[in-house]
Amino acid sequence: MDLLTEKQTASESIYKGKIIDVYRDDVRLPDGSAGVREYIRHIGASCVVPVTDAGEVLMVRQFRYPFGRVLLEVPAGKLDRKDEDPLAAARRELAEETGATAESWTYMGAFYPTCAYSDEVIHMYLAAGLHFGQTSPDEDEFIETARIPLADLVKQILTGEICDGKTQTALLKAFCILKERGILS
Amino acid sequence: MDLLTEKQTASESIYKGKIIDVYRDDVRLPDGSAGVREYIRHIGASCVVPVTDAGEVLMVRQFRYPFGRVLLEVPAGKLDRKDEDPLAAARRELAEETGATAESWTYMGAFYPTCAYSDEVIHMYLAAGLHFGQTSPDEDEFIETARIPLADLVKQILTGEICDGKTQTALLKAFCILKERGILS
Repeated sequence: MDLLTEKQTASESIYKGKIIDVYRDDVRLPDGSAGVREYIRHIGASCVVPVTDAGEVLMVRQFRYPFGRVLLEVPAGKLDRKDEDPLAAARRELAEETGATAESWTYMGAFYPTCAYSDEVIHMYLAAGLHFGQTSPDEDEFIETARIPLADLVKQILTGEICDGKTQTALLKAFCILKERGILS
Repeated sequence: MDLLTEKQTASESIYKGKIIDVYRDDVRLPDGSAGVREYIRHIGASCVVPVTDAGEVLMVRQFRYPFGRVLLEVPAGKLDRKDEDPLAAARRELAEETGATAESWTYMGAFYPTCAYSDEVIHMYLAAGLHFGQTSPDEDEFIETARIPLADLVKQILTGEICDGKTQTALLKAFCILKERGILS
């Protein structure tokens, strides 16, 4: 793979923010020439597909400022610190956003949303055996919840109605896994 | 949805870069309190799942600087300008990165990689009826190509070996669509 590797020659911190830090690095490209890489550092996140025994998913609707509109998403949230156990974050976000807890957790792998310009990793979980309680969102989070059959959500992904990236991948993975287990027809 | 909407009260340009522009806006949250939203503006992109008649996908391997390693991805690239036809961008990126052209194109919807802090949209296409020619990558792009059965790629997604987000969604969508068409068993 050495024919593809890029080497840092300088790094400049552009902005230290609340959820993103921005850098601009000079690099040596594989052919020896000079290049520039701009990128974000992000603490990382977890997301959850919480499925009821009836095959419905607890979803959330949230205003997404960069798009100026409400999107339908799986419950998700940032890690509290870089080394937080992603499963602990997934449990917390599920409880905060939907009020639910889950008995059974399956790891569905890592998701790099924007590998070209961000080091963010979203860890994906399938949660089942749900119990319901009170929501407690963060102070700057305003969320509505919805319970929607997984099969309907997969159709909405294929018709382009669900646009959020992590939500598309997490639901399609959950669908494949539950089909493999013989739980969905 | 008005219970969820946030209103801009001020906007600050933090950085104008080559591939990302960074902003920090003050907003009024749905409960009337003040909040801050940091976000990226990005020109948008297209990606392609190019499938051969034998059910193999033309994939690319590329060093991704934020992760410091080579990732396996579907061919993709930025739009040339905000209003470029995403299909034209998909055709160009497929040709540049793999040397292939395609007779048949199917739109697979939009993908918002990071709706919390970027307005990037990636348009997804399934391409079939492939013809092969010479690659011509951008000057700062160093790419290896690989031809891998779609069924194997789906397994690699479910075992967590393929991490890139757009790649996971695009391949899973292509798999569902080709199964619906009865092309894959």
